[in-house]
Amino acid sequence: MIQDRDKVFLQIAIDKAVESVDNGGGPFGAAIVSPDGELVCVGNNTVTKSSDPTAHAEVNAIRAACASVGTFSLKGYTIYSSCEPCPMCLGAIYWAGISRIVYGASAEDAAEVNFSDKFIYDELALAKNRRALPIERTLEKEALVPFIRWRDKEDKIEY
Amino acid sequence: MIQDRDKVFLQIAIDKAVESVDNGGGPFGAAIVSPDGELVCVGNNTVTKSSDPTAHAEVNAIRAACASVGTFSLKGYTIYSSCEPCPMCLGAIYWAGISRIVYGASAEDAAEVNFSDKFIYDELALAKNRRALPIERTLEKEALVPFIRWRDKEDKIEY
Repeated sequence: MIQDRDKVFLQIAIDKAVESVDNGGGPFGAAIVSPDGELVCVGNNTVTKSSDPTAHAEVNAIRAACASVGTFSLKGYTIYSSCEPCPMCLGAIYWAGISRIVYGASAEDAAEVNFSDKFIYDELALAKNRRALPIERTLEKEALVPFIRWRDKEDKIEY
Repeated sequence: MIQDRDKVFLQIAIDKAVESVDNGGGPFGAAIVSPDGELVCVGNNTVTKSSDPTAHAEVNAIRAACASVGTFSLKGYTIYSSCEPCPMCLGAIYWAGISRIVYGASAEDAAEVNFSDKFIYDELALAKNRRALPIERTLEKEALVPFIRWRDKEDKIEY
């Protein structure tokens, strides 16, 4: 259920997206808030600016929040994104263990300014051999070696 | 079609995954090869080591390759991954414009050592309101402001 403070934090993400455009970034912003309601960090899309296709606002915000908190888990945290997350960012949100998403603009709104992730969502929904992007498998046995090494390692940090 | 050189590059990614385990990283490696067949970079999973849930082998390799080439597009490049990419990495691969994926271990192999992305694939396939992770929308109108600013910007770099 959206509360007044959700609107405050989402507006911060939206303001960051506007500032991003003015500073040569993409029109996307995100903010991450701790379970206590503390704003941990704000990020924006820097794909072209930092020559990094993974530098979406949400990924940048997650990376900054984890660096700030010193953890790889943001369980209990909320992410506020100026726009609905793409599949990459949604994957990052799941891996970070974030507990709630609040967003403003829809994927359709983004598509109207030529930022469309529909193709990626459509591809992910297809069986591997039906996707436009060729994906092939080999060295099935050799590829198990790192997993065996991992399984047998005693001092590993699982996640 | 898998060729001999594909096996050479994939083995490099697998070797990196083994080395990663020995160095405190996760059991995953990836290599990126240019359209000319040149190895551009190798990456491994550093999620726990760098406190970054987005630091999967493929994402790390894409970031390093883009930094090395000085671009945000890896069109024509091939990514070799010791294991089938998760949805986050697959999204990153699409955004990077990578043209081909070659991998070794399957998602099922990874699940056997407790690295499962099935939950994320299942979630992404569901309608937003049926997912386990709550996602809510507000400030629909305010969130259009960055897009309008972007649309009207004359010197923007589209991608």
